[in-house]
Amino acid sequence: MPGPLTGVRVLDLTQAVSGPYATLLMADLGAEVIKIEPFKGDQAREIPSPMVGDQGSYFVAMNRQKRSIRLNLKSETGREIFYDCVRKSDVVFDNFRPGVRERLQIDYQTLAGINPRIISCSLSAYGATGPYKNKPGYDLIIQALGGGMSLTGNPGEPPVRMGLPIGDLGGGMCSITGILAALYEREKSGIGQHIDTSLLDGQISLLAYQLTDYHTSLEIPKPHGTGHPSASVYRMFETKEGYIVVVAHREHFFLGLVEAMELPELAIDERFNHPIGRRDHRKELESILEKVFLEKTAVEWRKILDKMDVPCATVSTLDQVMEDEQVLARKMIVDVDATYGSYKAPGNPIKMSRTNEERVFPAPFLGEYSEEFLKNVLGYSQEQIDNLIDKEII
Amino acid sequence: MPGPLTGVRVLDLTQAVSGPYATLLMADLGAEVIKIEPFKGDQAREIPSPMVGDQGSYFVAMNRQKRSIRLNLKSETGREIFYDCVRKSDVVFDNFRPGVRERLQIDYQTLAGINPRIISCSLSAYGATGPYKNKPGYDLIIQALGGGMSLTGNPGEPPVRMGLPIGDLGGGMCSITGILAALYEREKSGIGQHIDTSLLDGQISLLAYQLTDYHTSLEIPKPHGTGHPSASVYRMFETKEGYIVVVAHREHFFLGLVEAMELPELAIDERFNHPIGRRDHRKELESILEKVFLEKTAVEWRKILDKMDVPCATVSTLDQVMEDEQVLARKMIVDVDATYGSYKAPGNPIKMSRTNEERVFPAPFLGEYSEEFLKNVLGYSQEQIDNLIDKEII
Repeated sequence: MPGPLTGVRVLDLTQAVSGPYATLLMADLGAEVIKIEPFKGDQAREIPSPMVGDQGSYFVAMNRQKRSIRLNLKSETGREIFYDCVRKSDVVFDNFRPGVRERLQIDYQTLAGINPRIISCSLSAYGATGPYKNKPGYDLIIQALGGGMSLTGNPGEPPVRMGLPIGDLGGGMCSITGILAALYEREKSGIGQHIDTSLLDGQISLLAYQLTDYHTSLEIPKPHGTGHPSASVYRMFETKEGYIVVVAHREHFFLGLVEAMELPELAIDERFNHPIGRRDHRKELESILEKVFLEKTAVEWRKILDKMDVPCATVSTLDQVMEDEQVLARKMIVDVDATYGSYKAPGNPIKMSRTNEERVFPAPFLGEYSEEFLKNVLGYSQEQIDNLIDKEII
Repeated sequence: MPGPLTGVRVLDLTQAVSGPYATLLMADLGAEVIKIEPFKGDQAREIPSPMVGDQGSYFVAMNRQKRSIRLNLKSETGREIFYDCVRKSDVVFDNFRPGVRERLQIDYQTLAGINPRIISCSLSAYGATGPYKNKPGYDLIIQALGGGMSLTGNPGEPPVRMGLPIGDLGGGMCSITGILAALYEREKSGIGQHIDTSLLDGQISLLAYQLTDYHTSLEIPKPHGTGHPSASVYRMFETKEGYIVVVAHREHFFLGLVEAMELPELAIDERFNHPIGRRDHRKELESILEKVFLEKTAVEWRKILDKMDVPCATVSTLDQVMEDEQVLARKMIVDVDATYGSYKAPGNPIKMSRTNEERVFPAPFLGEYSEEFLKNVLGYSQEQIDNLIDKEII
């Protein structure tokens, strides 16, 4: 059965990563997502990345399940066509800098005048208000300003960037939440509204308990490596080959760990036989474990610890992730077949019992849906369409 | 005006971080979130953290805007009370390991028999299917297995954990998306459904383009420090005091950077005057910049680069985040006043034009809403309630 958002049409003006991630999730939930691309296309089409045929992997990963219309929004005719699209749609989503929508005359007030049911969402680096509103922002900048980077890295060393582009993706996640909440509310009120989301707001939200912990204690947290500041054993170990992470701070996990590692003396050692002791003597405890972990490979240790139900994992590189039997069993890697080539991409993380979208289709060529949409949905004649193509409006 | 989810009642069985993060966002959007806590309370109440009065900051941060009912779900009477709650609710959300709901007789099939409109979401480490389904999982484990950790750290060094608990929070984000999509769909179909989300699925989804980039090129990505593997200037620099991140890979940003740093000769240097050249000669280029950045503090450089509109940021620690003028202007830090003390927590990252929830209320004491809810919503008599308290059911 098609996804829960079947029948929802999204006009997607977003480019790069943050917005396209949100609309990818919406498309996987059954929404019809139509990229409205400028004449030269989403800038992500040009970002250097490995090639799937003549298309960049970066673009095709972020834009599967979507349609593409090419539209010159800076022309008056192009704008009128956009308004026609808005009459037939539910959501308009952009990641322009504040002010651009007003300049293009596609701000929420204007759109609501055309279709009061329209829901618009603008995702920018800093949001539409506040002193930074006009500044440019990128994932790295947002990770730095949002505090997450200050928590990432080895203790006593400079911070590093979180390897997933959380600055971008966090903003995308907040946007989809806002859009879906507005869609639900519209079923009650009959009218749409505008949502103002930002990458930075998303980062602050993700500070969750860490911000409150800091403010309550006034102890500024620093990069904490692979471990947990207040628990042991909870960290990564080097092995004969590869790294393993182990979470055995709770009593029964710790007992399983020392049994699996054939170190029963640790279980009765007064320094280590309770959580506080393990935390306070973590250096002594962990230096014993460090030596023993070097005796076997990460894969071997994982098998041994798994048998004792001790939470652990090898630190998977992306090739290993793609072969992980759980990842495969959950269908979290999808095969995409396009005329320009085949590729693999992350699947839909939201598994629903009744409305589960099954179709997978490839990222579109620039403008490949323009004619079909204008003809079938907006009711334009072939003559009108040919004329618009000649004038480089579509 | 109250938030878009006003009127939505969520029975929240989740504990710790992943689920509570999702229900916090829902509460900020106006949903009535009722924690159904076991007799000894959400385990997060016991996690060592700085104290706000007699409550831990970790718990109060994750659970503001929520009510609490104490309920012994293992007793038959407790289960019947839960069923009564389900009759009056929209969503049931748990993060039990698979199998626990069946054992407690609160699985989706049972609940749908009681209320066909109920939407249930189960968030577990690995999901309800696949070979790992019964394994325990923690943020560190999930970051390792999901591949994000393999991308985080300094080049040539061991990986580190992402400082935000993305393993947990990513799963929470997917869950709220699924719940809202199901709520929207229910408005069309009139019936609920079950959603099966997992922390690991969330991580795979967040690999976005990185997974496809890897699979297309077959080059296994490694930790890339603070930089971008294919762009320069895009990284962190040490300064006289503190760190600064700079994104100046694009032409106009690079020209702004060299002007701001008074290094005009770099703009006309053949090695550096185009993006490919900057990428290929990044070591030479960045070693020049490294020396100059050491001459002033991060705060000073930020002011200078800001004037030239070059994207940059100091790497903020949490005390600096809390004083950031943009963060404050966006009301991303809220003040919470409770009888046990006052605290600050991240605010709502979803700003809506028409339905914006403004109330902020503190995390509840264990069971403080039990009597009121049973009396006013479920219609129990005071005698019944007193009896349930005596029997330690509520």
